[in-house]
Amino acid sequence: MFARRTEFLKASEVRELLKLSDSDEIISFGGGLPAEESFPVGEMREICNQILEESGVKSMQYAISEGHAGLRNIIVKLMEEKGIHTSPDDILITSGSQQGLDLTAKAFLDEGDTILCESPTYLSAINAFKPFYPRFAEIDMDEEGLVPEDLIRKIESNSRIKFLYTVPDYQNPTGRRLSLERRKEIAEIANKYKLIIIEDSPYSELCFDNRKLPPLKSFDTQGRVIYVSTFSKTVCPGYRIGWVCAPQEIINKYVLFKQGTDIHTNFFAQMQIARYYEKYDIKEHLKSNIEIYKSRRDTMLDTIERTFPKEVEYTRPEGGMFLWVTLPESINTKELLVKSLKRGVAFVQGSAFFPNGGHENTMRLNFSGVREDKIRKGISILGEILKEEIDK
Amino acid sequence: MFARRTEFLKASEVRELLKLSDSDEIISFGGGLPAEESFPVGEMREICNQILEESGVKSMQYAISEGHAGLRNIIVKLMEEKGIHTSPDDILITSGSQQGLDLTAKAFLDEGDTILCESPTYLSAINAFKPFYPRFAEIDMDEEGLVPEDLIRKIESNSRIKFLYTVPDYQNPTGRRLSLERRKEIAEIANKYKLIIIEDSPYSELCFDNRKLPPLKSFDTQGRVIYVSTFSKTVCPGYRIGWVCAPQEIINKYVLFKQGTDIHTNFFAQMQIARYYEKYDIKEHLKSNIEIYKSRRDTMLDTIERTFPKEVEYTRPEGGMFLWVTLPESINTKELLVKSLKRGVAFVQGSAFFPNGGHENTMRLNFSGVREDKIRKGISILGEILKEEIDK
Repeated sequence: MFARRTEFLKASEVRELLKLSDSDEIISFGGGLPAEESFPVGEMREICNQILEESGVKSMQYAISEGHAGLRNIIVKLMEEKGIHTSPDDILITSGSQQGLDLTAKAFLDEGDTILCESPTYLSAINAFKPFYPRFAEIDMDEEGLVPEDLIRKIESNSRIKFLYTVPDYQNPTGRRLSLERRKEIAEIANKYKLIIIEDSPYSELCFDNRKLPPLKSFDTQGRVIYVSTFSKTVCPGYRIGWVCAPQEIINKYVLFKQGTDIHTNFFAQMQIARYYEKYDIKEHLKSNIEIYKSRRDTMLDTIERTFPKEVEYTRPEGGMFLWVTLPESINTKELLVKSLKRGVAFVQGSAFFPNGGHENTMRLNFSGVREDKIRKGISILGEILKEEIDK
Repeated sequence: MFARRTEFLKASEVRELLKLSDSDEIISFGGGLPAEESFPVGEMREICNQILEESGVKSMQYAISEGHAGLRNIIVKLMEEKGIHTSPDDILITSGSQQGLDLTAKAFLDEGDTILCESPTYLSAINAFKPFYPRFAEIDMDEEGLVPEDLIRKIESNSRIKFLYTVPDYQNPTGRRLSLERRKEIAEIANKYKLIIIEDSPYSELCFDNRKLPPLKSFDTQGRVIYVSTFSKTVCPGYRIGWVCAPQEIINKYVLFKQGTDIHTNFFAQMQIARYYEKYDIKEHLKSNIEIYKSRRDTMLDTIERTFPKEVEYTRPEGGMFLWVTLPESINTKELLVKSLKRGVAFVQGSAFFPNGGHENTMRLNFSGVREDKIRKGISILGEILKEEIDK
């Protein structure tokens, strides 16, 4: 009865396990939530009143698939600040950046095409692409992000490559940032091999060290980089407002698929985000958010340092929301998660982030959405469990 | 570079032509807009203030893919009033009913599957399904909607049938309503042939004659009907809030695809719609909307009656937003549209609504979104053009 693709989507174990972590008694490092303290609730109340007073009818009517013109202008300016010179015709507003990935799949993927991606990569990108029957070729990573030499190797040893999917800034799940040198290298590799790049950049503004790196797209001289981003981590995720920035020829295809997918993105929400950027100081807002995130990251790293056994390796992200833990190979984090949940702590098993499986000894920890007292408590419990497992 | 499916999506001629009709100088019967006068702008302002005061943080945070619990409870009651006995677990909130169709395609369609549909059928359903490479078998319609005998013929003469897609209430594009007798017959046919039905019902509340018919799903004894609907025509379309009601086994598949598609639907907007139903009298609201629509329908029919040549046939819808015009076979409405736009009037050429093409002598006219003085003027101009064409 169902389509063949439903077989890939066996009810996600991660999701089922994490349903348990909804309870208040569980300290969950499994989610990917922005800090609630960061949402501009009061400002949004003023904004809603203004929109409904000045443009009430327009905010409730059908709108064009491309998105709110004012918001696209704002995004052009945001892109400009990152060294990407573009125009509103190159911008499509999407229902979160997740929809940018769904439209990417529709516009590019035929059955059997190869997607190059970091190993590990973003779980929900795998879920967006898989329904279109691609193969995944995973590229090695190190502390500087994906390894250009391995990218070349995988380009040369795979057929029907459609694109490279990459999260250069504070990657989900590892928290790693692609180095400046490598950004330039990868842009050159893309030109040489005529490679399309999907640059997914939801976390770039959550930079803790004041050393923002220019996006891959800013080095793109041939219109090969499709940049996908979101307001979920700068304003709030509940409104589901993201965007795709790409040459107009590509945006035009995305728009056609957008029409069949959901016609257009919630127009009121587009106006909310546009007004927020027009009326308030996003830089000040981000500065105070980053303080929260940075402090939570520090607390998590300190507690790991104090409580995790010395065999455990982990990343030290300079931004974003996650860090990545690699345990001795004898430990399976799926089994560990069951034990950990019994003691009131949740995380995501790392194997979920590898499209071709394996790596059962890894886990992702989220620090952005958990209060510091809970981080201390939860990480200490995890440390105790890890000690018990390793000493076995 | 692009996927094979992009070939089907040659830039829609309809869309390109209708872009011209955005200008204020054009009277457009081409859109599908609810009357702006129908939007509860003042009420929404109160609602926004309440949400941000009472649940500001929650309204801005990530939420579960299934949708807002309170809104799903409201939908269960709406379904109950229609004779559909269901539970919140059988409801998924979608980004407009259009997304219900996209998720249907993902959950059910393999390349080469056959979709049964009315002839003509909803244009954007064709666009939602086509990227998944189905075949379409069109079922004959008459004034009582799709013809059960032809449905049986097509079931028996086609292989790999996946589902019947139908819009029983004031169908887009014809405005026709499936008769009560036929609803029962089709439910029986579905049971006999183990046929899945996608019942798309965006217009059922826009009933002008106080004679609402029970949905196909209310006759469903085997969980074969997937009911898709929306708040776009009862509250407003800009918020993009719709739903799917189906047995939980099916909803579970849809939820998995929803996660990869856009994670969840705008949560603030779900709260807006839920509060509207909790705090205001939707029945009173609909009553006044229906007055507007009914009066516009009457004006359009009266003017057609007075000004169109007698050779022209048209439907007389008892609800909804559209009527359907069939011209003598010698007239091509695509060519007619070019002439008509020059004289300041737009419509949609009917051939766009036939997945297998043909029927160039038909057109769809929207009455819900056009003021009555403009309806009189625009239809009169169209009448003049038709006379000239037929007298040629």
